[in-house]
Amino acid sequence: MRLAELSARSGVSTATIKFYLREGLLPPGRRLSATQAEYDGTHLRRLRLVRALIQVGGVPVATAREVLAAVDDEGLTRHDRLGAAVWAIPQPAPARTREATAEETAAARTQVAALLQRLGWPSEDLDSPPGQALVRTVAALAGLGYPHDAEGLLPYARAAERAAEADLDMLEHFTSEEEQVEASVALTVLHEPVLLALRRLAQAQESARRTGRPEEW
Amino acid sequence: MRLAELSARSGVSTATIKFYLREGLLPPGRRLSATQAEYDGTHLRRLRLVRALIQVGGVPVATAREVLAAVDDEGLTRHDRLGAAVWAIPQPAPARTREATAEETAAARTQVAALLQRLGWPSEDLDSPPGQALVRTVAALAGLGYPHDAEGLLPYARAAERAAEADLDMLEHFTSEEEQVEASVALTVLHEPVLLALRRLAQAQESARRTGRPEEW
Repeated sequence: MRLAELSARSGVSTATIKFYLREGLLPPGRRLSATQAEYDGTHLRRLRLVRALIQVGGVPVATAREVLAAVDDEGLTRHDRLGAAVWAIPQPAPARTREATAEETAAARTQVAALLQRLGWPSEDLDSPPGQALVRTVAALAGLGYPHDAEGLLPYARAAERAAEADLDMLEHFTSEEEQVEASVALTVLHEPVLLALRRLAQAQESARRTGRPEEW
Repeated sequence: MRLAELSARSGVSTATIKFYLREGLLPPGRRLSATQAEYDGTHLRRLRLVRALIQVGGVPVATAREVLAAVDDEGLTRHDRLGAAVWAIPQPAPARTREATAEETAAARTQVAALLQRLGWPSEDLDSPPGQALVRTVAALAGLGYPHDAEGLLPYARAAERAAEADLDMLEHFTSEEEQVEASVALTVLHEPVLLALRRLAQAQESARRTGRPEEW
């Protein structure tokens, strides 16, 4: 297929595709003439993955290039390839609060480490991107007068486990590894507002249940 | 207490307190002289609530004023006061994807309505701020080739229910209604990155469990 068809089938504009080609995120097509090239299904799949990383996931171009190298590295396990992609996605912005003190951060690290141990998750997770995001948020909570110990975080981890099971179930619908990586990036990001919107609805539901719900509601 | 002490005890700068006073978000203190006023515990509690709404929750000033009016309205139930505050918080930004088509949005509404019915949640939730955010996100997912029916959304709703139970449990630690409203705003917002970071860690855990985990990990 030509560039115009690649654009139509992927939903990515030709200008954006040319940018991805220049940045080496998409391999060049088979050259037909000085101004025309032929693309195939491998380009379409790779383009969908690049779009998921950059447009949906907000991954910087340089990081996207590293992720693609990991995806193409046949020496890595499927787990490592998925991990390279998902952990490259920027963590959701924390709420605008003051910088936590060194003491608050140290205390938060201790509680998150205790949580990981309680869950049987690897202690190395503490220094992973989501682990560091968790420490920062727990420190911010403490600074606002809402301290959390491992026990207080546990129900959120249990809720997260349920969501993660559903996430991994969905990935199994995709057969190629490239599609699985693409889906894992897209669904990690796109399911975040799903989960958060449902949590707000569930809060209203739980509040109504506990305080007695008006008949007309 | 004087303005300086109110600032020190709340952690809110005097310039910000003066802004809140001018905007009518904080009632004036008892006037001591042309340039000095006396503040008390009611100002401190209200100031913490205003900070939670505006600085942590990102609620616009005009909306914060409406929320405070609801909090002060003794004709409302606790459930309605909490709801007024929490539903005023802007929904998390959706991922940057193209605008959904009218067909995608209509199909998403149908699926979300079916989900609410399946959960036994009020059908009015569909037009609430989180309900609308959910419809937009489900439409965006469909547009990227990840359609969801009510059944596919259900595990995320179950995860959200667990998080909401933990949220409401935490609110019961606070005795005054004003503190509960403040905590519900602060914790709704600050627990979002907690839940999302834990979900990414849980995904890695679940992926390792399914694909066989390397010994050294």
